[in-house]
Amino acid sequence: MKYSNLTKAEAFKNLLSDKHFNVKDKLTKDRINSFQIPIVENLIYNYAAMPVSEKILKDLQDLSDEQEVIKKYREILLGKVMNPGEQRQVLHHLTRGKVLNKAKIEVDGEEKEGFYQSQLEKIQSFSFAVRNHAIIGSTGKPFDTVIQIGIGGSDLGPEALYMALERIASPSLKAKFISNVDPDDASKVLDGVDFETTLFILVSKSGTTLETLTNKQIVMDAIKDAAIPGMDSSKHFVAVTSKTSPLAASTDILDVFFIDDYIGGRYSSTSAVGGVVLSLTFGFKVFKEILEGAHEADISALNPNIKENASLMDAMIGIYLRNVLNYPYTAVLPYSQALTRFPAHLQQLDMESNGKHVNRFGKSIDYSTGPVVFGEPGTNGQHSFYQLLHQGTDIVPLQFIGFKYSQIENDVITKGSTSQTKLNANLAAQIVAFARGQEDKNKNKSFEGNRVSSIIIGRQLTPKILGSLLAHYENKIMFQGFVWNLNSFDQEGVQLGKKLANKVLDGCEDDEVLYSYASLLK
Amino acid sequence: MKYSNLTKAEAFKNLLSDKHFNVKDKLTKDRINSFQIPIVENLIYNYAAMPVSEKILKDLQDLSDEQEVIKKYREILLGKVMNPGEQRQVLHHLTRGKVLNKAKIEVDGEEKEGFYQSQLEKIQSFSFAVRNHAIIGSTGKPFDTVIQIGIGGSDLGPEALYMALERIASPSLKAKFISNVDPDDASKVLDGVDFETTLFILVSKSGTTLETLTNKQIVMDAIKDAAIPGMDSSKHFVAVTSKTSPLAASTDILDVFFIDDYIGGRYSSTSAVGGVVLSLTFGFKVFKEILEGAHEADISALNPNIKENASLMDAMIGIYLRNVLNYPYTAVLPYSQALTRFPAHLQQLDMESNGKHVNRFGKSIDYSTGPVVFGEPGTNGQHSFYQLLHQGTDIVPLQFIGFKYSQIENDVITKGSTSQTKLNANLAAQIVAFARGQEDKNKNKSFEGNRVSSIIIGRQLTPKILGSLLAHYENKIMFQGFVWNLNSFDQEGVQLGKKLANKVLDGCEDDEVLYSYASLLK
Repeated sequence: MKYSNLTKAEAFKNLLSDKHFNVKDKLTKDRINSFQIPIVENLIYNYAAMPVSEKILKDLQDLSDEQEVIKKYREILLGKVMNPGEQRQVLHHLTRGKVLNKAKIEVDGEEKEGFYQSQLEKIQSFSFAVRNHAIIGSTGKPFDTVIQIGIGGSDLGPEALYMALERIASPSLKAKFISNVDPDDASKVLDGVDFETTLFILVSKSGTTLETLTNKQIVMDAIKDAAIPGMDSSKHFVAVTSKTSPLAASTDILDVFFIDDYIGGRYSSTSAVGGVVLSLTFGFKVFKEILEGAHEADISALNPNIKENASLMDAMIGIYLRNVLNYPYTAVLPYSQALTRFPAHLQQLDMESNGKHVNRFGKSIDYSTGPVVFGEPGTNGQHSFYQLLHQGTDIVPLQFIGFKYSQIENDVITKGSTSQTKLNANLAAQIVAFARGQEDKNKNKSFEGNRVSSIIIGRQLTPKILGSLLAHYENKIMFQGFVWNLNSFDQEGVQLGKKLANKVLDGCEDDEVLYSYASLLK
Repeated sequence: MKYSNLTKAEAFKNLLSDKHFNVKDKLTKDRINSFQIPIVENLIYNYAAMPVSEKILKDLQDLSDEQEVIKKYREILLGKVMNPGEQRQVLHHLTRGKVLNKAKIEVDGEEKEGFYQSQLEKIQSFSFAVRNHAIIGSTGKPFDTVIQIGIGGSDLGPEALYMALERIASPSLKAKFISNVDPDDASKVLDGVDFETTLFILVSKSGTTLETLTNKQIVMDAIKDAAIPGMDSSKHFVAVTSKTSPLAASTDILDVFFIDDYIGGRYSSTSAVGGVVLSLTFGFKVFKEILEGAHEADISALNPNIKENASLMDAMIGIYLRNVLNYPYTAVLPYSQALTRFPAHLQQLDMESNGKHVNRFGKSIDYSTGPVVFGEPGTNGQHSFYQLLHQGTDIVPLQFIGFKYSQIENDVITKGSTSQTKLNANLAAQIVAFARGQEDKNKNKSFEGNRVSSIIIGRQLTPKILGSLLAHYENKIMFQGFVWNLNSFDQEGVQLGKKLANKVLDGCEDDEVLYSYASLLK
């Protein structure tokens, strides 16, 4: 396998001469209908409003080939050590419940496909038992609420998925999430909660995450304070952790589900980290549909031809925007209220994976890597920050997400159209307004255009389509990491803050700067 | 009054030679303790970790003077037409319930201080009547839920403030918010709502906002479908709108509260737009405290000396970051879960106000204006996108917000410290980790430092402090608009999308590009 920096690639040098494609003049019916690729059935990626010519697409294909992007994806699937910083395999694709190849992957003396499969079966039987009241609370009442306690990857992905499906897959048990070490977070979530009917899921791979252990204690104290006769808190906690963690050895919990070091937190939504809470609330069948969707997107991402592989095309256009056109950010704009927390999940997925200043060998690089990712659902954003997107002094590349059908059936008709029709009319209008702009004698009312965008369009946001959407982004971001020659699977950047926080908690009198800041906050 | 472009200012030219201040080497106890300014009592702005020398601060003072920033603020307060695009006054400072000067401002034949004061009194008596059951639902039950239907400025600010105070000011009535035209939004919010005890607030200045009218209809239909005996929906709606709007003339609502064209949506949180919902839920006294805090911050923002005016200093440092150091974004990172939606409000406030490509006279400009603003609460962000902030290839300026005390009293002690202590230890640690970095032989574990930040520190997030925080940002953003010579009070950039959306709804067969995109979404 060849690992070399982006700026060494011949195809990249070719790309640098191609900076002046005006989307404004190029949008036609033909381009709109042909510049699109299916991700899976009922989900397409359309890049007609991206600033790419056939010549640029050819160079992007060459760059993908030269950086051996798809070959590296196959190395991941074969269980090679693709997280070199931590010397680990990258196995989250195995959590989809189906394998993409027949090679058996054995790590730490354990056959991994079987391991993840066994956890999936455990999730199935456990969620079935809870939902059917074979497992109930310690005072004899069935569970009706699940509260997941976790932070970062143990929070954002599962919560984004839960919120995405809350309308369409009507949960039998409601889910809530506690993440922040700020005591006001737990306090708010616990307000009005009936402990007798609540099951808590502690999620921490290491079993040592400060926030999660602190919040566990807050919950334990609150249960104790409630002094409910017959209440045994150990019957109200399960854990998702690694086999070697202190949490795994707990005696005061009902059950434990395992993940391992080969599933990065931000890539763990399809493991037990997301699986337990989603199966408890929506039923295992819904979780399986998410996995099925993710698996299908994983398959479609294997195609080395960028014109047939939406995740690869999305990735390569992102490289062009970042390293040739030098745009430092991307906005993710789902026209679906159900995806309200999906941008926050993508923000982590992208910025934590590819916000790196050294290559996979720990050497300096001379090019930009991951962009800042932000976003809010449309049409809300239209009434907020879109002003800058339309008329600010800088161009922000946009990624829209839309669906032909809403999740609910009973839409209302006002002024001759449904809400969903209005939503999508706005979405289509925005793409064209951004790309084409509008001249006006009054410059305050003129729009320069050439504000580039792509759009992912689904038939409807179902569990399966959601799984495909999730995997599309996971694979896209992984592909970009390959092009940038990064390790997208570690996160050394979060360590220094943790170290210094512990120093503050220990007093830090020997560090005048740290001490001064800590004092301001006392 | 002198209005000239940034790049014409002598002081700006001086600033351009000052690009190489290393915060990394300059942080000392003295700097940390002296580079700070009170905003109001119990709220300070500290800029020790910003890349500014005394020379740069002197130039920023000169620039503020040269652009007549504070003089222009006084013009606003005197009721001059400071929104030239729409030829309007800018009067949101008058909504604080106290005036900053004695000049009577008369517009459209109406004395404005008295007008806003009368609305405030109306909010007081109405909220008192609802909270004391003098006004009840049409079936005879007291109201226990308020649902605000509005979008953009009619949603983000009020919702951010409501969430910020939900823990500390325990609402007697619960509030919910419907904004998106996506029918899944209303559907989710209405799920489980008891219409008999719910009061809806329709908020639209023009009374014609598509999303808001559509959502009103969805609610009306849902009430009708519920077929509750004796239910009269007209007794469950109030409106916040302008006197001339169609909503104001409605006969099917309980009451109406007025705003006017001189309060921009994103600056309207302290008007009836925020006042009705916050007074109904928390009581008028709490809303008055918010106003009092905002008023005090408005006063402290009048000082022309940047070293004594935190909002001005924050603004001027922002100009330096944007136009001298060329940073295209700013992250807002509140270490307070209660401020979870505050970044979304600031995103609108900032990006909609200053995301402009022409100056206040509609002429082209040759410098960058408003940055992209994004953020999530810490410590959550630490486990997500902070990787890029620490080790990405680009520097993202940071604005932290922290509080000495949490909102709740009963914090838990684990491993020898409270959650709040841990939260703040993390906050202090992050500032130092970003600024100072850390060398390591393993470059993957090294941090370059010089990642600049400021922090706003409050004693506790009370209603009054929240009001001050809100006004600090409103004034800061207004000041930056003055320096950039912009009109921060219009939003022409949102018009083209609206126009094209209507075209799509009308069929748009004559526009092949629009038609093609619209077809993809059908």
